[in-house]
Amino acid sequence: MAVCFQFQSPLKPINFPVSTPRKVPLLRCKASFSTTSTTEIEPVFTSVKSFAPATVANLGPGFDFLGAAVDGLGDYVSLSIDSSVTPVTGLGSSAASAAAAAVAVNELFGAKLGVDQLVLAGLESEAKVSGYHADNIAPAVMGGFVLIKSYDPLELKPLIFPQNQELFFILVSPEFEAPTKKMRAALPAEVGMPHHVWNCSQAGALVASVLEGDVVGLGKALSSDKIVEPKRAPLIPGMEDVKKAAIKGGAFGCTISGAGPTAVAVIDNEEKGKKIGQKMVEAFLEEGNLRSVAMVKRLDRVGARLIESVPR
Amino acid sequence: MAVCFQFQSPLKPINFPVSTPRKVPLLRCKASFSTTSTTEIEPVFTSVKSFAPATVANLGPGFDFLGAAVDGLGDYVSLSIDSSVTPVTGLGSSAASAAAAAVAVNELFGAKLGVDQLVLAGLESEAKVSGYHADNIAPAVMGGFVLIKSYDPLELKPLIFPQNQELFFILVSPEFEAPTKKMRAALPAEVGMPHHVWNCSQAGALVASVLEGDVVGLGKALSSDKIVEPKRAPLIPGMEDVKKAAIKGGAFGCTISGAGPTAVAVIDNEEKGKKIGQKMVEAFLEEGNLRSVAMVKRLDRVGARLIESVPR
Repeated sequence: MAVCFQFQSPLKPINFPVSTPRKVPLLRCKASFSTTSTTEIEPVFTSVKSFAPATVANLGPGFDFLGAAVDGLGDYVSLSIDSSVTPVTGLGSSAASAAAAAVAVNELFGAKLGVDQLVLAGLESEAKVSGYHADNIAPAVMGGFVLIKSYDPLELKPLIFPQNQELFFILVSPEFEAPTKKMRAALPAEVGMPHHVWNCSQAGALVASVLEGDVVGLGKALSSDKIVEPKRAPLIPGMEDVKKAAIKGGAFGCTISGAGPTAVAVIDNEEKGKKIGQKMVEAFLEEGNLRSVAMVKRLDRVGARLIESVPR
Repeated sequence: MAVCFQFQSPLKPINFPVSTPRKVPLLRCKASFSTTSTTEIEPVFTSVKSFAPATVANLGPGFDFLGAAVDGLGDYVSLSIDSSVTPVTGLGSSAASAAAAAVAVNELFGAKLGVDQLVLAGLESEAKVSGYHADNIAPAVMGGFVLIKSYDPLELKPLIFPQNQELFFILVSPEFEAPTKKMRAALPAEVGMPHHVWNCSQAGALVASVLEGDVVGLGKALSSDKIVEPKRAPLIPGMEDVKKAAIKGGAFGCTISGAGPTAVAVIDNEEKGKKIGQKMVEAFLEEGNLRSVAMVKRLDRVGARLIESVPR
């Protein structure tokens, strides 16, 4: 028995509810499940459709251990059973794709797995694409902010951003392929003690700001990285000026999302966010000679979810 | 005009309220205030007595930026005006002494200074004794947990531990003078990236645990340092076994307080704390051949305070 995946165009803006879903299959793959266990798990649906949010990670001092999910941006996975297909393993895509796929498979088989197991499943997929990092896959599965406490065993700590507070990410993506090898090589192997202490304290402040719903403090903390961002920003044309433009425009903070090239800034108001995004787009063009698009998106508080299913 | 300080035996267990205060003057000093300002500040009392709590700092991954105040342990400062004494400057003592002195002087002159200014004043004193670190003086002045966000400008973030939760520090001090020079030399100049990321994530978890009143998580996080504690613990005979004994005895976590030699463990129950303290004392004796005393003390939530004053 094979399970067929269909991924919708990942990380393009989407809206809920989806009445006429756009079908842009970017990737089709097939997966099989080992039947070594004595009790084979039977699917409870013939097809399911799931969604998982895009994520921002490497949030300044939160490098490699803190990520957040972005509302209204992410990936759908449609999944159906085709008993005629020979099983072939393989699942590689972004964290949103991996999270949506994990949820889809899980729902298809009656939601036997818990959140931690879904993150572990997605982590295996992520490991093949971008390294063994859970700071994208965990918030993609769980929503909100998630702190990765440890990998062995996997310990995840959701950091609940207060419901009565608004948090918007301003995401500005330039037409530029970040040189992955250079981005990785730019990471220092060693960190001087003063910078280590500084970044630790800012990581603490970032976590406190999330829990307290302090968007100003959150922005300040994610802007404060002295270790990774200063090495990577110069590799993205205009990035340093984009950050300045964001702050000057009223953003509470700005840094590189993940390994780039997207810039992420934070604000508490959507309209303000759009204006700031425009300033950032202008800075990318003027200082980096790069065209870019800006989006303003809320924090996603839900994570990967089932969108629709067809009963067996 | 001179102001005369009298310090009571610092960092010995004390109880509130003090009906018959024990007077063990360890240090007497005199301080004067510059009269260069055009409007001289006049004292409003002829004498005041203040108290400031002892503090634990360098809490595992909270190294150098997070400290907490300890209830029922600290230093009193009695301060009176003696117009016949020639002014001599000088104020050097522990953070508790410095905090109590700062509060005493401030109260004597009508409490003109805010908390930040008191910390800055204490910081100047601390700088002369133990380096320019605010992670002891800030909680000594403010009580509770305090995160040092930055020094220039000084930004302090109180982390409020929930009122309905209990937190006890088990403090075990061996008869051993920690070799300060060696303790400092043991600090690595550089930190490998994986350890940096690990400690940052634990620092984040520590902050989250404080804010959420999660004593188990707090203990786990403060126990998790991979950078400073592994270098310093071997310099204090028996420390590694004391930590093991604390955890085995039921403590939620254990690390070195400050630069040592005191071990600090955390628990949510005083009686349990006393039993764990006894195990730690036994471990210091058996494994480090050191005699030690254990104390179990609550988190101090108040900070430096006025105890009594005599109106002018």
